Amino acid sequence: MSKQKLTLVKVGGKVVEEKDSLQDLLARFAQLDGLKVLVHGGGRSATAMAERMGVETQMVDGRRITDANMLEVVTMVYGGLVNKNIVAQLQANGINAIGLTGADLNYMQAVKRPVATIDYGFVGDVVSVHVDQLKLLVENQVVPVLAPLTHDKNGQLLNTNADTIAAEAAIGFSEYFDVELVFCFEKPGVLEDAEDDCSVIASLNHAQFKDLQASGAIHAGMIPKLDNSFNAIQKGVSQVRITNIEGLQKGGTLLVGE
Amino acid sequence: MSKQKLTLVKVGGKVVEEKDSLQDLLARFAQLDGLKVLVHGGGRSATAMAERMGVETQMVDGRRITDANMLEVVTMVYGGLVNKNIVAQLQANGINAIGLTGADLNYMQAVKRPVATIDYGFVGDVVSVHVDQLKLLVENQVVPVLAPLTHDKNGQLLNTNADTIAAEAAIGFSEYFDVELVFCFEKPGVLEDAEDDCSVIASLNHAQFKDLQASGAIHAGMIPKLDNSFNAIQKGVSQVRITNIEGLQKGGTLLVGE
Repeated sequence: MSKQKLTLVKVGGKVVEEKDSLQDLLARFAQLDGLKVLVHGGGRSATAMAERMGVETQMVDGRRITDANMLEVVTMVYGGLVNKNIVAQLQANGINAIGLTGADLNYMQAVKRPVATIDYGFVGDVVSVHVDQLKLLVENQVVPVLAPLTHDKNGQLLNTNADTIAAEAAIGFSEYFDVELVFCFEKPGVLEDAEDDCSVIASLNHAQFKDLQASGAIHAGMIPKLDNSFNAIQKGVSQVRITNIEGLQKGGTLLVGE
Repeated sequence: MSKQKLTLVKVGGKVVEEKDSLQDLLARFAQLDGLKVLVHGGGRSATAMAERMGVETQMVDGRRITDANMLEVVTMVYGGLVNKNIVAQLQANGINAIGLTGADLNYMQAVKRPVATIDYGFVGDVVSVHVDQLKLLVENQVVPVLAPLTHDKNGQLLNTNADTIAAEAAIGFSEYFDVELVFCFEKPGVLEDAEDDCSVIASLNHAQFKDLQASGAIHAGMIPKLDNSFNAIQKGVSQVRITNIEGLQKGGTLLVGE
């Protein structure tokens, strides 16, 4: 028997943090056919909330340093404010959503990143994914909404990159479902020229990605997203697309395995 | 066939907001036999966080006025900080916990409280409880951890009293389970003399409660808890106890139907 299709959409950047674009996005997400999962970020809201609370935001190479105070902020913002508002809005759109962190149902376990040259603090590197309980929910027409937080199974919550959560969850679900992973952000896809939104690359394989990386055509923020994407394809995810809200159903850059 | 037993514990007050007592409580909760559900408050943490954020806390008769800024605070604190830390700690205790608000799985719907003499703001009065999806999780040995937030199914989260959440959820579950509701707080039970912790009333029926209320022996904060309790008994909950951490398994004041 062939596997049932499941679409896992990762939304991040400004799209998820401005009220109008978020409502537009959730209305479009609600209309996607079939089984689905949503993963969200929330970095801008976390930075804004940290500032209101007098907590300093420190970034290294685009990654947030998460000390105890910042962990409190991201637990509140990602796990509470952003996640629960998305859930409430999806319910208003007729979607039976449920908001989760990796601690909930122990669905994603991580270890605190070892300190090499930089101490990232309470940042988690994923070590295991258990989607068996989520699978039952999904088969019951429930839509999980995943916040970028994991735990270490010893009581410690950990901040984890939302693209990584999306890729790891997609890999976990691919045991049971035919998974399409869609990264939805501000740009219409991977661009040949970062300044030209009309230069979307329709499809990209791993060798082509490495060429574009070597030539410097793909900008820094896109590289981990593409690394995550090709890793997901290698580990069982059927299809990965990178697109914006308008391309959610179909469109953007399709990443293809070798 | 007789119904399976389910214990629903509501924890609130200082117990849940001080690290040591919370760990003690969760360890004891983890040891309770059988199916279970946890409901938590978090008012002190919300007040403290509001102060850090420069949001003023206004209370009327012990109830929080929840304007848009305060709703943001309680969504973050109840739905994120308190809820997800409890979930992570229960996972460390070997309990497969899942943290939820009323918006998640649409399990508890409310309406914004109509303005009579006082405008409570974004405070929800419960209108419907749907525990069918929670029932499936509970039967799978999952332990729901319920935050004191509901939604109106139109995208609006609402602040809802945790005792009310506990009583309404207990009533909802009583359709499927033989439910014991335990209110766990600082005092060892309902006291005959509020100043004397040794004056625990072993059992109390509704007529006795009304007598004690008329004589002024029961203090103000206890009255809505007892009203919630007798309402729960009347609507199908098998047993309600009011106790402290030490009495979690057995002890405190047992409330009995007429």
